[in-house]
Amino acid sequence: MGLCNSVSFHLPCPVRRGRLRLKPIVQERLSIMADLRIPASLAALAGLLLAGPARADEGMWTFDAFPSAKMQADYGWAPDGRWLDRVQAAAVRLTGGCSASFVSPDGLILTNHHCVVECAQDNSTDENDLLKLGFVPVRREEELKCPGQQAEVVTAIGDVTARVRAAIGTATGEALVKARDAEAARIEKEGCRDAATTRCEVVTLFGGGQYKLYTYRKYADVRLAWAPQFQAAFFGGDPDNFNYPRYALDAAFLRAYENGRPVKVKSFLKWNPRAPQVGEATFVVGNPGSTQRLFTSEQIAFQREVGLPLTTTILSELRGRLIGAMERSPQAKREGADELFGIENSLKVYVGRQKALNDPAFLKMLAEAEADLKAKSLGKPGIGDPWADTARAVKAYRDLYVPWRFIVPWGSLMGYAQTIVQGTAEREKPDADRLPGYTESNLELTTKTLLDEAPVYPWLEQVEMAWSLSKAREYLGADDADTRLLLGRESPEALAERLVGGTTLADPAVRRALWEGGRKAVEASSDPMIVYARAIDARERELKKLVDERYAGPLAEAGATLADARFLAYGDRIYPDATFTLRISYGKVQGWKERGIDVAAVTTLGGAFERATGAEPFDLASAFAANEARIDKAVPFDFVTTNDIIGGNSGSPVIDRSGTVIGAAFDGNIHSIGGNYGYQGDVNRTVVVSAAAVQHALEVIYPAPALVKELRGK
Amino acid sequence: MGLCNSVSFHLPCPVRRGRLRLKPIVQERLSIMADLRIPASLAALAGLLLAGPARADEGMWTFDAFPSAKMQADYGWAPDGRWLDRVQAAAVRLTGGCSASFVSPDGLILTNHHCVVECAQDNSTDENDLLKLGFVPVRREEELKCPGQQAEVVTAIGDVTARVRAAIGTATGEALVKARDAEAARIEKEGCRDAATTRCEVVTLFGGGQYKLYTYRKYADVRLAWAPQFQAAFFGGDPDNFNYPRYALDAAFLRAYENGRPVKVKSFLKWNPRAPQVGEATFVVGNPGSTQRLFTSEQIAFQREVGLPLTTTILSELRGRLIGAMERSPQAKREGADELFGIENSLKVYVGRQKALNDPAFLKMLAEAEADLKAKSLGKPGIGDPWADTARAVKAYRDLYVPWRFIVPWGSLMGYAQTIVQGTAEREKPDADRLPGYTESNLELTTKTLLDEAPVYPWLEQVEMAWSLSKAREYLGADDADTRLLLGRESPEALAERLVGGTTLADPAVRRALWEGGRKAVEASSDPMIVYARAIDARERELKKLVDERYAGPLAEAGATLADARFLAYGDRIYPDATFTLRISYGKVQGWKERGIDVAAVTTLGGAFERATGAEPFDLASAFAANEARIDKAVPFDFVTTNDIIGGNSGSPVIDRSGTVIGAAFDGNIHSIGGNYGYQGDVNRTVVVSAAAVQHALEVIYPAPALVKELRGK
Repeated sequence: MGLCNSVSFHLPCPVRRGRLRLKPIVQERLSIMADLRIPASLAALAGLLLAGPARADEGMWTFDAFPSAKMQADYGWAPDGRWLDRVQAAAVRLTGGCSASFVSPDGLILTNHHCVVECAQDNSTDENDLLKLGFVPVRREEELKCPGQQAEVVTAIGDVTARVRAAIGTATGEALVKARDAEAARIEKEGCRDAATTRCEVVTLFGGGQYKLYTYRKYADVRLAWAPQFQAAFFGGDPDNFNYPRYALDAAFLRAYENGRPVKVKSFLKWNPRAPQVGEATFVVGNPGSTQRLFTSEQIAFQREVGLPLTTTILSELRGRLIGAMERSPQAKREGADELFGIENSLKVYVGRQKALNDPAFLKMLAEAEADLKAKSLGKPGIGDPWADTARAVKAYRDLYVPWRFIVPWGSLMGYAQTIVQGTAEREKPDADRLPGYTESNLELTTKTLLDEAPVYPWLEQVEMAWSLSKAREYLGADDADTRLLLGRESPEALAERLVGGTTLADPAVRRALWEGGRKAVEASSDPMIVYARAIDARERELKKLVDERYAGPLAEAGATLADARFLAYGDRIYPDATFTLRISYGKVQGWKERGIDVAAVTTLGGAFERATGAEPFDLASAFAANEARIDKAVPFDFVTTNDIIGGNSGSPVIDRSGTVIGAAFDGNIHSIGGNYGYQGDVNRTVVVSAAAVQHALEVIYPAPALVKELRGK
Repeated sequence: MGLCNSVSFHLPCPVRRGRLRLKPIVQERLSIMADLRIPASLAALAGLLLAGPARADEGMWTFDAFPSAKMQADYGWAPDGRWLDRVQAAAVRLTGGCSASFVSPDGLILTNHHCVVECAQDNSTDENDLLKLGFVPVRREEELKCPGQQAEVVTAIGDVTARVRAAIGTATGEALVKARDAEAARIEKEGCRDAATTRCEVVTLFGGGQYKLYTYRKYADVRLAWAPQFQAAFFGGDPDNFNYPRYALDAAFLRAYENGRPVKVKSFLKWNPRAPQVGEATFVVGNPGSTQRLFTSEQIAFQREVGLPLTTTILSELRGRLIGAMERSPQAKREGADELFGIENSLKVYVGRQKALNDPAFLKMLAEAEADLKAKSLGKPGIGDPWADTARAVKAYRDLYVPWRFIVPWGSLMGYAQTIVQGTAEREKPDADRLPGYTESNLELTTKTLLDEAPVYPWLEQVEMAWSLSKAREYLGADDADTRLLLGRESPEALAERLVGGTTLADPAVRRALWEGGRKAVEASSDPMIVYARAIDARERELKKLVDERYAGPLAEAGATLADARFLAYGDRIYPDATFTLRISYGKVQGWKERGIDVAAVTTLGGAFERATGAEPFDLASAFAANEARIDKAVPFDFVTTNDIIGGNSGSPVIDRSGTVIGAAFDGNIHSIGGNYGYQGDVNRTVVVSAAAVQHALEVIYPAPALVKELRGK
């Protein structure tokens, strides 16, 4: 229950890092998408596009409830328990918000390039820009630490539903949230005695229908082992993002270390750089971040009428401000690249969602699913009217949404300050009373993220903080009490300049001194960012209390009832909404029809040369251009499958029937964006970079003979 | 029918100038709001919020249909014909998109400061920034020409409905549009023999229910006579825009010249710098630009689902890009100020509209009005089902909207190029065959706007063109044929840089040479912007043809039928939608209740000092601060009235019962934005700067003794 991406509040994540990636979506704690800051318990309900159980290849299944019978019926084959265990043991979650997998006994990890962009950038300088040049270490000793990154492997999944429900008892509102979170903290603490190597997380599935304890083996030292040039990974840039056909080498390798040495892992997936075959079965194993397939019509209406219009509007302005600021110097252009990339990607997601929810046909499908469930639930004992309860909670949230969303300004430095101020207070409390990010089970990661050295770009901090404050004023109004709390008599620009210019929190040693100094040090601090964080802390807590009492609590109650209704209606043919925990999806390699025209499933390396115009972002990576003669243009590049995925799945291994890796999922097509609300099997596609293309790159484009050998298992 | 703001297409307006102002709204030809580029004939239908005739103080009435009986009933008094004639003769329309009035026999014109910002900026340098310093000439000889500005006074209104309808006959689709526009051009040409001093415009009212010939006396030489500091006019900036209470000195004076001398006018309004009295009757006389109160539910749905989400999103990005670019230097900050101001204002309007259309209660009111009209029309002869016809047209428009909107990139230089390329071709045709902006009746103004000297900021041109092209690619897709036409193999940034960097069209002499050189000169030109405009011309015309055939034509037909239905149902108690032509609204000085709290109708000069924080945009103008001791803080500053206005009304005189000017309308409150779709009498308010405050400013803050004397009539 600790991960900042999936919990109900925006406190515990110490810095604004850790986006959910399938391309990153900005939805974390200092989130501009507060309507996504809904507790997992609300967001997580089994989702069906049309009334009834999962159709076609729909479903992000938990490993303990894989629908073998259904797959057997659809495909004439399904994996057995051993197959599933083996795959699960090799699946990696990256705390940066991505998925991955071990692909060698020496801790080598396959993921996407866009999941290591931040790491590459943190390790770059103007002279040695790893995004521009790529990164191909000759020896392992040259592999580079990724600040804040952690790799996690699920080792056990246990059912703790009875314990959590008993702890909740008859509590409602904020009391329900507190009781639930406190019991979760207790379970997590009991479950993980060794904080250095394990992590425990209570996950709410089916909106409170199930609570599960996920235990992870964790690796806190993750290093960059190979990365192509950004331009190769992201060929086509934002225009091609979420589109297909694609020609993107969006792959990279990391390596897990312990005690300064590569870890030895028993479970890893066999690398299989062969061509994908149209029609063959594929599995995507990873951590889809969040879906909202079981939202009631009231929750959908809130998104369509309030959340998404606000989000697309303000995020577009930030995109523009960043583009404008990056033009000031080549250095700024380099430093802002990853941030812009994340913002543009998020924007595309939100614009896509808005489009889906402004499509009357799509809405009608959602409404029909709700009507079917209502009809099937009518008069069932214990069900009552959770739809009306949800409507009341959403109505209350409409009044809280804007202040709740804007009360903490954006920025890494702001995030550091808030973690220090809140964490210091939280750590004095008994574990069960703490905000989730600061419970014993989460404190380790929170501390790591707070204290890891990572570059801070003051100009970028200022741009984002000034933007965030000015949007707060715009949406709250100049005379609003929260605006006055945030701004005092200063302008957003002047305040951002004063705080960013005056703080010394960019220095990890300063953060460490405050964090270890405890309450006394924090109260004595005159660092302007700390002073500011202290000033807004009480109001932020008050708003969280209100949100829990009027919205999160009631929704958790209604969510549990809705889950009961759904189990009654559809049995076990349903799966929980995504919660950035391990899932498996099955499907097949297959194109689709776009406005009557067939889109082929597989592209080739040669296609990139045909598509290149020479103009950004359709300019070939220099290593592609330089090695054209040696590149086998017939090698498969990217391909699409029917697997059901969402942001957070980025980097997921795409596995064939034999359990070997034939690619890494890195994107969805444009129809996958509506997948947040419902899976459309005829058009929703996962976009994958083939292992074959990565292999060819390792051989002739960004040559890494040692890796080739390691992947070959020799 | 020629004004670029109110016609159906985006061709004729030579440069991206001439926003409709009540604060400027970006909705002109190179418009980002193509859903507002709907023909006047479509937009213009009588609007009622609830079914039935105008309620309370609702209504933007034409002078030939003032509802005397209704006002008499509501107020116990109504103006007579002489009163109306006198007022009409003093009312001024500014082609920049504002309203105004003569206030002295020497051609002195009262309007808003925000209507002269562009003029002030065009006349500014880094050393002499008129926005920063204000402008108070000591002698008339120092008054400064406003590039592109023209003042117009209605001298006659004639009914030409029969002629236009006869010309249309049974034509449909594009043929209908052509027949209508050709007849309008003929009428305009016949009506105005003296193009140097008169202008004729056929206006479509009630969606084709009426066609009227408006004849104007025009004054093409307009000069700036007095302007306070921008910071005094726009105190509170964007945060306070569309809000109230306000403390803005948003007033300025222009003067009309002819043959280098101030014009002598017979009709002018008496200046009356007295305090407004709560409850007293007020008239706003001006040119509301556009309302959409009679849109059918399908047209509303298009806006809610397609037009507004796209507009708010892309315009926000432009806002951000501009903010980012303006940070590069103080010069850029100055040069971009007016543009940013216009964009932020437009954005507030569109965000407000989106909010209105995402409010279920508001939508329900609109739906009830439609249901009432449908019920009253059922079985009436000749009515048929114009709602179904509208739905079909809107459906077709959904497919055309994105290319139509993006086919002409933004930018003044692009606008010049397109006017030159298209105008040269159009001028070779018989008058009746030309695109409306190039008919004989409009050519004069088109030419003036094209050839007037006005500063061009290359950095700004590049920002807007690159933004516009990149949005085109984003919404059309990278592989779309129109994207390829627009970009070729270049990136938006590189293309914008090449065109803006290479063109010499910023020089009026170059434009003149091409314009006068005709087809030969244009075809021979190797100016890259001209070359580019030539390349997109055919596709732009093709799209216009498609839009006319499938959308504008059918909607014009349905619109006329809807107007018939409305007249049948409600008689003459209705008024036409706004068309940037002269209207009169009556109402009274009155505050309102905002969430249960009374908002007082009148503020005082002293309030500005109380509200000032010292931080932008709540920093006092230096002349206010410097003169604090001499300022009478009890003098009324701004006030609100119930008058029904909309963008375009900016600068409108606010007139009391005796026919004297007691202020200038400059804004609406936040509820006035929904006024685009319907007037809500309990909360919709006009915001006015009082003549009393302007008088006090003329005396002690920005002293202009000669103007004081002139206004006193001595």
